[in-house]
This record gives sequence, C-alpha cells and structure tokens, in this order.
Amino acid sequence: MIRHSLLFALVLTASSPLYALAQASHSPVSSTASLHLEPLSWWAGMHNPKLQLMLHSSALPADATQLKVEIAGQDVVFEGIEQTDNPHYLFINLDLRQAKPQTFDIRILAGDKQLFRVPYTLAARADGSRERQGFSNKDVIYLITPDRFANGNPSNDNQADMLEQAAPENSDGRHGGDIEGIRQHLDYLAKLGVTQLWINPLLENNQAQYSYHGYAITNLYRVDPRFGSNQDYQRLVTEAKQRGLGVIKDIVLNHIGSNHWWLKDLPSSDWLNYPQQPNVTATQTAPTASFTSHRRTTVQDPYADTQDKSDFVDGWFVDAMPDLNQRNPKLATYLIQNSIWWVEYAGLSGIREDTYSYADKAFLTQWTKALMAEYPHFNIVGEEWTANPLTVSYWQKGKINADGYTSDLPSLMDFPLYEKLVESLNEPEGWDTGFIKLYEMLANDVVYANPSQLVLFEGNHDTNRIYSLLKENLPLYQMALTYVITAKRIPQLFYGTEVLMTSPTEGRHDGVVRSDFPGGFANSKISGFSGKGLNAKQQRAQAFIRTLLNYRKHSAALQTGDLLHFVPQNGIYVQFRCAAKHALAGNACYQADADKVMVIYNKNDQAQTLDLSRFSKVLAGNTSAISVFTGDKINLNQSLALPNAGVMLLELNHQ
Amino acid sequence: MIRHSLLFALVLTASSPLYALAQASHSPVSSTASLHLEPLSWWAGMHNPKLQLMLHSSALPADATQLKVEIAGQDVVFEGIEQTDNPHYLFINLDLRQAKPQTFDIRILAGDKQLFRVPYTLAARADGSRERQGFSNKDVIYLITPDRFANGNPSNDNQADMLEQAAPENSDGRHGGDIEGIRQHLDYLAKLGVTQLWINPLLENNQAQYSYHGYAITNLYRVDPRFGSNQDYQRLVTEAKQRGLGVIKDIVLNHIGSNHWWLKDLPSSDWLNYPQQPNVTATQTAPTASFTSHRRTTVQDPYADTQDKSDFVDGWFVDAMPDLNQRNPKLATYLIQNSIWWVEYAGLSGIREDTYSYADKAFLTQWTKALMAEYPHFNIVGEEWTANPLTVSYWQKGKINADGYTSDLPSLMDFPLYEKLVESLNEPEGWDTGFIKLYEMLANDVVYANPSQLVLFEGNHDTNRIYSLLKENLPLYQMALTYVITAKRIPQLFYGTEVLMTSPTEGRHDGVVRSDFPGGFANSKISGFSGKGLNAKQQRAQAFIRTLLNYRKHSAALQTGDLLHFVPQNGIYVQFRCAAKHALAGNACYQADADKVMVIYNKNDQAQTLDLSRFSKVLAGNTSAISVFTGDKINLNQSLALPNAGVMLLELNHQ
Repeated sequence: MIRHSLLFALVLTASSPLYALAQASHSPVSSTASLHLEPLSWWAGMHNPKLQLMLHSSALPADATQLKVEIAGQDVVFEGIEQTDNPHYLFINLDLRQAKPQTFDIRILAGDKQLFRVPYTLAARADGSRERQGFSNKDVIYLITPDRFANGNPSNDNQADMLEQAAPENSDGRHGGDIEGIRQHLDYLAKLGVTQLWINPLLENNQAQYSYHGYAITNLYRVDPRFGSNQDYQRLVTEAKQRGLGVIKDIVLNHIGSNHWWLKDLPSSDWLNYPQQPNVTATQTAPTASFTSHRRTTVQDPYADTQDKSDFVDGWFVDAMPDLNQRNPKLATYLIQNSIWWVEYAGLSGIREDTYSYADKAFLTQWTKALMAEYPHFNIVGEEWTANPLTVSYWQKGKINADGYTSDLPSLMDFPLYEKLVESLNEPEGWDTGFIKLYEMLANDVVYANPSQLVLFEGNHDTNRIYSLLKENLPLYQMALTYVITAKRIPQLFYGTEVLMTSPTEGRHDGVVRSDFPGGFANSKISGFSGKGLNAKQQRAQAFIRTLLNYRKHSAALQTGDLLHFVPQNGIYVQFRCAAKHALAGNACYQADADKVMVIYNKNDQAQTLDLSRFSKVLAGNTSAISVFTGDKINLNQSLALPNAGVMLLELNHQ
Repeated sequence: MIRHSLLFALVLTASSPLYALAQASHSPVSSTASLHLEPLSWWAGMHNPKLQLMLHSSALPADATQLKVEIAGQDVVFEGIEQTDNPHYLFINLDLRQAKPQTFDIRILAGDKQLFRVPYTLAARADGSRERQGFSNKDVIYLITPDRFANGNPSNDNQADMLEQAAPENSDGRHGGDIEGIRQHLDYLAKLGVTQLWINPLLENNQAQYSYHGYAITNLYRVDPRFGSNQDYQRLVTEAKQRGLGVIKDIVLNHIGSNHWWLKDLPSSDWLNYPQQPNVTATQTAPTASFTSHRRTTVQDPYADTQDKSDFVDGWFVDAMPDLNQRNPKLATYLIQNSIWWVEYAGLSGIREDTYSYADKAFLTQWTKALMAEYPHFNIVGEEWTANPLTVSYWQKGKINADGYTSDLPSLMDFPLYEKLVESLNEPEGWDTGFIKLYEMLANDVVYANPSQLVLFEGNHDTNRIYSLLKENLPLYQMALTYVITAKRIPQLFYGTEVLMTSPTEGRHDGVVRSDFPGGFANSKISGFSGKGLNAKQQRAQAFIRTLLNYRKHSAALQTGDLLHFVPQNGIYVQFRCAAKHALAGNACYQADADKVMVIYNKNDQAQTLDLSRFSKVLAGNTSAISVFTGDKINLNQSLALPNAGVMLLELNHQ
C-alpha cells in the first residue's frame, strides 16, 4: 500500500503550499490510484464565497450512488457534488462565506470504504490583496520571453522527466532562461525605468518540441520546472514589488497543450471542442474546420453564417493545442478559479490574456467579471490581433455593441495603432502617406469605450523587431519609442528593444525575434545588463530609453494628461500631452497653467524651421522649454530650429 | 422710370411661377434698382408654418428706422423684419399657419415712399406632397451628368448672356446635354430597370469656365438655361414619375459659385467663411488655411486642434467655390427653405447632398431635421468620401457618437464598400487578399446605425469607370455590378456603365469619366439607347444589367431581404438574400420557406465544383433553382458545377 501523501505529492507540485500539508498528514488511503485535486488550495475571505473543487481519480466508483464525500472543515459548507459523463471526475461545491483560515480533511468514500482522505488548506489572504492596484497609465510594461532573457539557474535547464531538453543552438529550442534569471536582473529593469513585467507563460509545457514559448500548457497549477518553481515565481513577484515593479501573468483560456493530463482522461465528452485530435490535415478551408479559421470578423459580423462563427471559435489553434470548450460550466469555473488562484498566490498586478477572441465570448465576460469583482482595481489586457480598431473595440468594457454583447475586459493590445505606427514611419511623407496615417488613425479612438486604457507596444514576441522594421534607422527608432512611451495609452516594450535587437522584417521568425538577451546567457560576449561590449548605437538607444522612461515616471502629463495633436505638415508631426492643475472642461492643453509636454516628430534630414504660431493657444505665452533628452533650455519665441530627423521632447516651462 | 415687373423679371427666372404673376401685376416701383426676393414663392399648408423672405435691393434705405414693410395677405401674419450689417438686405418673417393659397402684395416703403410692391404667391400643395415616398431599398438609382447624357435641345446649348459657351470637343467644356435629353430617354431608362434618377446639379453655373459639372451654383432658384428651365425640370419629374422613376436632386450646401450674385454685395460680413477671396496660393498646408484642408478626420478626432477642425470645415473648396458660413442663422434658413422649395416645386423623391462633412455640422442636422420633418418619408443621401466606415458612420441618423453629435441624415454614399469592392475584385485570391477583404468589410457594418440605408455605387462622376478599373474583364464587371445591385444597400449606377464606358484608371480624369453617352449627341455613331452599333460585349453588358435590374424590381429578397454570407474559400464567395414570409426572429436565410436568392461569385478561370453541403441550412432541402441570367433550371443536389469565372444568381425553388 502506498501512502496517500506520497501519491498526492506526485500530482501536486512540490512547489505547492498544499504539498507541505499533504506531507504532514500521512493519511492512509485505500486506493493506489493517483489523485488530482484542484485548485491546490484556496483562501478564506474571498469576495466570491463559492469554491468548486475538481477531483480526478480512476479509483472513483462507476456507480455514482456509491460515492460519498465528507468535508470536515469548520464553517465550510458542503453544498454537494456534481459529476459529468466521466465517473473519474468529481466536482465538490463548497460555500466558504463563514470559513476562517484552516486546513481540513476531505474524505471520499465508496459506500463505507474510504478512497481518499485529503487535507485541504484555506490560507489567510495577504494584506490589501483585494485592493491591489492593477497596471495602469502610470506604468510602462516590459515583456519578457523567459526562456530567452537570462539563465539564472543552469541546473534547471534539463529535467529528466520532461519531454524536451535544452538546445540553446536551436532557435526553436529551449535556451535555459528562467525565473531566477529575471530575478537577478530586477535592478537593471527598475533602473531602465519600466514598472511592470509581462512574462510569457511560465506554466508547465511538457510538450515534445517547441515548448519554450509556453502557450501549450500541460498543468495549469505548476510553473515549468525548467523555469523554476511556484515558489520561485512567488519570490520573483515579491522582490520585483520591492523595486516598484509589478508582474503581469500571461494566461491562456482558449487552449491547453496536447500533453495536458486531461487529454488522457477527458473530464467530460464536451470538455474540448473537437475532442478527438483533428484528423484532417491542417486546412483552414474545410467546411467544418477542426482548426480555427482565424476569421475573427465572424464574431461581430451581422451577416456571418453560424458555422463560420464556430469555425473560428471552436477550431483548434494547432495540433498541439486542443481547444477548450468554455461553454461547459465546470470548465468555466475551473478556469476562473485557476486565474484567481495565481493572482492571489503570486501577488500579481495584472493578466495578459492570449488569443482573446478565440474563446467563447459569453465565458470571457464571465471570467473578466469574476476577476474584476474579486479585485476591483485589477487590470487585464486581451490580445485581439487585427489592424481594425472596430474589431478590437468590440471586446473592451463599456463598448455598446450592435449585437448587444457586453464585455468586461478593461484593456486590449492596440495592434491597429502599432501597425499604423510602423507603416507611417517607414513611408515617405506625402498627402496621404506617412505621419498623416498615424494622425488619422487616432481619430478612430472614438470607436473605443476607453482608448487610453489600451496597451500600445513597439513589439512583442509575435512581431518582428522594431529596429529592423525601421531599417535600423536610429532617428525613426527613437520616434517610434517616443511615440509609444508618450502615447495616451499604457505603453509596452519588448525585451531587448533597448539594445537594438534585430530580426528579419518579412514573415514570421519567432525563434530569431525571441533571441537571447545579450548578457543573459553564459556564452554572451556583450551584456545589455552591464553595458559591456555594447556598440555606440546600442548605448545611445539604451540611454535614450532610460531617460524617457525615467522622465515618464514623474510626468503627470505623460501618464494621465490629455492629448492634443496637429495635422502633420511638411514631414513634422506635433503632439502635446497636458495634465490639468484644476478640473476644467475641455482639453487641458488649452489651459494656460497645465503641465505640458510637447513632442515634435521630424522626418526631414535637412534642417527645418518650425513656425510656432500654430501652437500659440497651447504654448500660452511659454517662451521656453527644457529638452528632456538633452537637458537644454529651448527658446520658444517665434520658431524652433529642427536640425535633423528625429524627435524632440520638450517640457514647457511655466511662466 | 422702369416698371417694376420688368425689373423683377430680370432677376426672377422666366420659369418661375411667380414670374407670370409678376408680369401681371404691373405694379409701379419708385426705384430703378434691381430686386431679389427669395424664395420665389411658397406654399400654403406646409408643416413648418414659418417663412423668412430674403429681399435684396440697393435701393433699401441705409437708415433702418425709415424702413417699413406691409404685408397684405389674408391670414399671413407678419412677424417683423430682421437686418444684417448690409442694409441692402431685408429678412421678412412670416407665419403662414392659417394662410390659404393666395397671391398677396408685399410693399416696401422708406418712410412714406413706396420702394417696391411685389406680388407674392402661396400656391396649393400637390396631393400627397408631404407623404411622398423617398428613394429606398426598393430602388436602383441611376446617376446622370446632364451635360454629357443627351442633347435633347441643341438650341439651348449657347446662351448669349452667359459666360461659358458650348465646346463639345473640350473634355472640360460644355457639351450641350440637357433636361430635354434626359426626358427623351425616360423610356430607355425605365426599360433598363432603374427607378430613380440622380442628376448632377442643374442650377445655374454662370462661371467663366469648367461650369458643366454644376457644383459652382450662381443662382439657387434657377435651372441653368443651357440645361433648360425650371418648368422643364418640373416636367421631367412629372414624366419620369409616369414611368415609375423618381428624381433625386443634387444639392450643395457647402459652397456656391464665385459668380453668385451674393458675391457682388454680400448679405452680411459673415455670410461666407474667409469672405475675401483667398489670397494665398492654393496650399493645403498653410497654418490657417483659406482652402479646406480636406482633413475630414478632424471632425470626430477627440484630440484634434480647434484650428485644424475649422481649417477643414471653413476653408474654400476651390477658388471658384466660396465657402458658405451656415452658422449664420439667416443663411441656414435660406438654404433650408431653398431645399424645401425644390422638393415641393419639382416633386422630388430625394436629395443627394454634396461634400456633406465640409459644411457646419450643427447646421447639417438642422437642415436634415427640417427636411425630414416636412417630408417624413423622404430620403437624403450625403457624400462623405473616405474609405473609413467609422468616418462615414458619424453622419448617419441614429449613430451614437463619442462627442455627442447627433445627425438626422438617413443615408450616405458607401465609399468604403465601393473601394473595397474594386480592390478585392482586382486582387488575386489569397489568405488575406481578394474576396476575403470584401467579406471582412461587411463586418464593419456594425459601426453604422443603419447600414442597409447606405447607397452603394459602382461608380460616380468622381470615380474612374468600373469597367476600366476591372481591366475590361467582363466576368469581373458582372461580379461588381451584381454585387452592387444585390447588396443589402440602395444600389446606384453611373450613366454609361451599362454600355461599358471607359476611362483611365489612375488619378482623376473627370472630363473622360463624364464622356458623352453614346447616342445622346448629334455626332454619335453608335447608340446605347437604340443599341445601334454597340459591340457584342456592350450588348452583353447592357442585357445583363437590364436582366438584373428588372429581376430586382420584383424580388423582395433583393430589395429588403436579410443577408447571409459565407467566408470565401478557393476563390468563391457565396451570399444569400432572403425575405421572410413570416415575422420570425433571426436571419430569414435560416427559415425554410423564405424567398431566397443565392449569389455565387467565382474568380476561377478553371472549372470548379462547389460543394453545397456547407449551405444546407439555407438550402433547406431545395434541390433546384432558376438561374436569373440564363433562365435555366439548376440542380442543387450535392454540388454545383462552376464552368468559369463569373457570377451566378439563383432563385431558389420552393418545395
């Protein structure tokens, strides 16, 4: 007979807080079968008093009438069990309204025979957990692909019991970067000036190949051991917080990895869409697709066929990523509890949700509502990858949609503005090319319920590198970065942008885009962290970004100010951000005493003179400014000399 | 002393109903100065009982206290006069609530001296005038450029007292087409199957050059004598109506022609924006533009500068088109009354309003509200020329705009869908090129308050010719025309499209785009009207359009049915239009007994087999259909053979 605690530990991760408790309980079990019990633990005093435990064991009796559950917790109200068409799963409903922090026994019996006795812990919540502040316009987010940022603990690179081992020379292989690598460079990141870390998924991806990206999750309660442990993640968040850095978790609701343990014994026949591994070859044109069609407009399209709609939402993302059917209420509850568990467990300040629109849309509202109800000041950003603001806007909280759909998602990635930024900077200036496209794009902000809450980025793990996209032209790069960081948005950078990491510019090159950050790996000859070996351009870029980010940290105008922009003329585009000192109607840029920042984007290689009379209502008598990048005092009398292409960032002096 | 009636007749057009009365009145006047009195006449029993007359004469006394007005009408309540900073203008406010049809005298005195005695007529309204039905989804509009369609009366081509004479050999000159030319071909148009005629502006354009297009109006109450008279216009509408054809007037609210009589003595110093002829050379980049910037996104842009906004709205369109300041309430009233006058006088079924967004937006709402209040079933379509549906949608009645602006305009020209149609047909099919763009464009319909009320066109006087744009490829042309005519829109064709008129394809070529319709002019060797000399392709195109339009006349599915479309696959795009027999929730295409039309667009030159299983929910057991173009019975069992590129239009047989 094998002791329960040991068996349990094989399933629960060694990093779970429940693990220690399970170790201590030494409770005898009458079955040798493995047991899954999730969530691994919970907390007393949550806003939502309900909890649904998922218990999986092949030892559960086929005859449900035999099944008996005993809950020994104090003030833990056992509300009954539910089952699916798979008798190996048991869903235990609890009401924890009155429950204090405690560990209590859950006993599972078949008739009079005890199958399992499992200790379950309700922990005490951290102070201020509910009131935590999510990422906001005050922040700048820095995206890290953890396998590629820094290898802080080479001993975890290979795990004998996992399918894929390290292969640093393979651009699609695992390179060994980990949580410890991020932890070791928190000071670097804090000094750079970012304030939030979005880290690509850290959960277990026990897939045979191409697992480093993290989006094929095989255990939703376990950090991948090649990245570290659950506790390492907890510690990273704690130490980051000490440096003013929040951590945003990358969550995937649409799909799991094909080696998730569910696949060996599906919780129900409707747990997945197309539960049989699709046996058609990957084609997005099959009448009834087993793979997603990626035709995202079908979600809103008032004329779309119902099957076309479901071909988008229900199809698998790829073979390795089975599509979850979130219409199953037990799965919906599981996913909601899983997300909340990580927020509470790790102390997160936000969530980035992957492939947002690919999941069931009613569920998405349920999920966001539940999270935001639990953490009213939290923040969540969804990925809806399209150049069309209309398509993105559908998903933001507050949007009045034609089909009546209401979303609770506070934020979305601003792909449309990102794409227009790159396009407009790359184009020659003309009547309808160049800056005018960027200018006109912002007028589309009317389609969003809350445009300033969008996350604008200069790149991410799916885009080619901005420096390369801008033809390795430093002035254009500086314009792009300044645009993102001074936009009336929540800005987001991608790791390595500050040291001019490059990639091809056409098509997808994920492995190259997600190259190793210089200095993060044993073989690095140069280091972005220490500056060792960086060339002059890299040094200049890094200093530029550091200056900009650290200036933004203390600029109310850039964080929360109003935006005023002027129709681009002669290759020059001028924006102002202005924070009012007093609550007054209208754009603060027209208020004389507001805090104002002027941004001048200039594409001309030849020297230009910018006539300032056009901005007189905003300059409001200010005759000088300080250049944020040079520290120089700049006269703002009649005109401004622009010696060459690039960007000026001016803080207006108050009279 | 010159008799008043004669003087008056010089100003009033000979075609005015008031003219005859003025002739008869022989009233002596005590001034030799000319007199303008507008509106030329009015009607008893209008919904809005108020009327404001504009009277202009240089004989009016500079001292306003001397001025006396006597209104002799029965139950015509004189509510007083208003003046501006130009003493030559007098605005007379009347309330006609109780007034019956009559002619009454208006006497203008300076002190005790009579300056003018002018008879003024309130006519009886035509039966059903208020209840007139505007153009609708049941209609197909045919746009005619009157100078270029048919010269029915060569004797009016040249007018000795007008600045520009006929020059048929000059593509930018006047060619002699006229109202009589249209009238003579009403039977052709009725048989072609169109049901509404939108005619480019017919009002006087007494400009020195480039006057044929009609958009530089010099008298807002007079048909240009080179086109005919006001009575000719009235007669055209009457005879068109007898053939089931409505007439839509092309109205310009934004600007007038620079030879308008107002320019010689402006009604007020704020009657025009930039009342001095702009003395900058035409540049759209001057900081304070005297010409419109054409930057239309500034209207909605939440971040746009106020001066940038006014640079768009207040700048002149071109030198020859001074910009009206509709914020002046007397001008606003003048324009509203002028529009209503033509609707009532000529018996119109709609208005097309030019350069819609260039006018003052508060006025535009006032204007549309006034028209729609006067004619509740009327229709008005505005021109907002942009590829962005968001920008267009701002102007449609019912749209909830971010800035709180409410519009009362029922319809807009659908430039975004037109542009996407041409683009998608011209492109090779690919993952994100070709039909998919057209498919995805329709999902943007959610941005409109009422997308089906938009007017979709295959071309107009400002676009290059569709047949040329589609590389003179007849199958593509047939697809484009079928798309427009079967769209869930109000379709609009451009004269000559039915006989494959051509033009260059890049840039603007107005004179060529608006070439003479074959058969409309003395020197025509071929005739689109009689078919004489048309080549085989032209005959085929004309027969195709005739078949399609005449089918549409009796198809509830195409006129008002629901639209269902399928994600394009393999170069084939399938749409259905379905009219429900019973009021049921959901798309009528999923109702078994609805009237259904299936449209199959196929870009493949090689024979294809279309698997019909994907459409089974719509086919609903129908196993056959009738091809609208060939009359053949088509089997709809498992699949459909598509022999070559082109379009099939199938009416499903009910079981």
